[in-house]
Amino acid sequence: MADSKPLSSLDGNPVTTEALLWDVFGIVVHEAIRKGTNASEKCHYSIKKGAAFLGLGTDSVRVVKADERGKMIPEDLERQISLAEAEGAVPFLVSATSGTTVLGAFDPLEAIADVCQRHGLWLHVDAAWGGSVLLSQTHRHLLDGIQRADSVAWNPHKLLTAGLQCSALLLQDTSNLLKRCHGSQASYLFQQDKFYDVALDTGDKVVQCGRRVDCLKLWLMWKAQGGQGLEQRVDRAFALARYLVEEIKKREGFELVMEPEFVNVCFWFVPPSLRGKQQSPDYSEKLAKVAPMLKERMVKAGSMMIGYQPHGALGNFFRMVVANPMLTQADIDFLLNELERLGQDL
Amino acid sequence: MADSKPLSSLDGNPVTTEALLWDVFGIVVHEAIRKGTNASEKCHYSIKKGAAFLGLGTDSVRVVKADERGKMIPEDLERQISLAEAEGAVPFLVSATSGTTVLGAFDPLEAIADVCQRHGLWLHVDAAWGGSVLLSQTHRHLLDGIQRADSVAWNPHKLLTAGLQCSALLLQDTSNLLKRCHGSQASYLFQQDKFYDVALDTGDKVVQCGRRVDCLKLWLMWKAQGGQGLEQRVDRAFALARYLVEEIKKREGFELVMEPEFVNVCFWFVPPSLRGKQQSPDYSEKLAKVAPMLKERMVKAGSMMIGYQPHGALGNFFRMVVANPMLTQADIDFLLNELERLGQDL
Repeated sequence: MADSKPLSSLDGNPVTTEALLWDVFGIVVHEAIRKGTNASEKCHYSIKKGAAFLGLGTDSVRVVKADERGKMIPEDLERQISLAEAEGAVPFLVSATSGTTVLGAFDPLEAIADVCQRHGLWLHVDAAWGGSVLLSQTHRHLLDGIQRADSVAWNPHKLLTAGLQCSALLLQDTSNLLKRCHGSQASYLFQQDKFYDVALDTGDKVVQCGRRVDCLKLWLMWKAQGGQGLEQRVDRAFALARYLVEEIKKREGFELVMEPEFVNVCFWFVPPSLRGKQQSPDYSEKLAKVAPMLKERMVKAGSMMIGYQPHGALGNFFRMVVANPMLTQADIDFLLNELERLGQDL
Repeated sequence: MADSKPLSSLDGNPVTTEALLWDVFGIVVHEAIRKGTNASEKCHYSIKKGAAFLGLGTDSVRVVKADERGKMIPEDLERQISLAEAEGAVPFLVSATSGTTVLGAFDPLEAIADVCQRHGLWLHVDAAWGGSVLLSQTHRHLLDGIQRADSVAWNPHKLLTAGLQCSALLLQDTSNLLKRCHGSQASYLFQQDKFYDVALDTGDKVVQCGRRVDCLKLWLMWKAQGGQGLEQRVDRAFALARYLVEEIKKREGFELVMEPEFVNVCFWFVPPSLRGKQQSPDYSEKLAKVAPMLKERMVKAGSMMIGYQPHGALGNFFRMVVANPMLTQADIDFLLNELERLGQDL
């Protein structure tokens, strides 16, 4: 372990490895000392980026296989842990994802938590995108097991559409870990001789110095909408995503990548010239060029913006994320009509 | 150098040490490999915090002496570099400050740049607070030499009062260093097959993923106010700070910590019971308790908020930062009158 010495804490003493897990840059970063962390192959790129920034190196991240729907395979997690240990590494953290970026996949948290428990590993859940689903009685089962996580990252600025940025890091810990990890006791900024309990001050618990009171956005929104109002937003997003899926199935020239389990609807628009040509050797190559071309046209027309990307072996497909609570079925109809209009000559 | 191996870059290749210097967390962080960086003892606490986060350890930061006005002493910088090298360390970065947090001191950049040039060290200038002074023809001499810096951090959200947050990192480099250091090439987010030059996309050059277009605030403000309008803001802040200083000198019970060179006006309020008691053995101890007590009273009265802090051997004193362009002489008068009112029975 010559090259895996613990990072220094701010007062110069070594800190426990857990100190490396905390919310950095508004994105939660989770790494391992020497090939010790496990994250699904569909996890967010921030995992590797965090490893680089924290000085651990990207080799510290060990990728766990995901199934065809993008969900982490717990058996492979178990296998990666054994492999890592066999190589003399010290795994300490598993990063699961609730709501992956492209497919919107939810990792099987109960099974992953079992693995973590067996091996004494910290379970972090990146629920930045999917965490808001907990507000829905109907859909919260997607996150079953999240109560067993040691830490959870959640971005109300995503599905709940709070203004950027509004990110929460939730911890089981009650030992003031953030203060112990992040505190730098700058006496010229964090006075201790105040007239109220300075434990309430958050300034010395975070990475940044000057920052906005982002939690206020969530608090005000929650007060204004109520738990029920926010639940309706989530349920409405699911329902509209379902509507989009059904419309896609009805129309010629649209092909779903897969049945979504969340509000990420991934699909190809197959233009007239490619319809019925699935057997052509250059079909996939030609299809992959359609999304960028349509994206250019919609941007130039100023009519809409839909993201696209390749994914593993799959060529470029559109990813419509149905989150905005102001969206209606008419907007969804417009989206499909507009794609047809923009792509009719392709 | 067994424990000072370069950090891995995001693609697994080693990066040069310069890659460690970049804008992290909206604060610029600058560190050295093994006791290799130099920063003045009055520099911002983010320097050490950054060293901890980047996995370099706080021991990597070597502190350079400052004079009684809080300015880095170039001769001591030279000495610290020699000491570090004698210990086998590899100094690579010097972090100077233009506008320290408490005293508002400007380091002598020309002399520091000379030292950096002689030793081949990267010169970073933390001009987060003082950088806006460059907009003033009258006062910009305070930053003479900043044109020789390799990197400069500047926060228009401070003296120019752009909305939090608005931070710029300025580089001499023209080799796309940020992209080379931060780029993670996540194909599902940073598509390369766009219809315009993707070199214009900033998403893959920064630490964060989702973030606001903070530069727009500066651009709009600059368009609205013009260079002259912003210059007036800066000059007005200097003038009002000068007014405050002169008023402090006129009034009994107020004592300047020192003549300010910037808009940080540091002073003690000496309440009636302590006036003329400078020779008492417990004078300093009693005086240090006045600012926290007055702060409590002003907060509870809801009349104003002025920061205070100890500084080196000096007990708590107020630090009035004159930045808000809406402030008038009447506000300054109110501030002093209110302190007298709140502290008359002490």
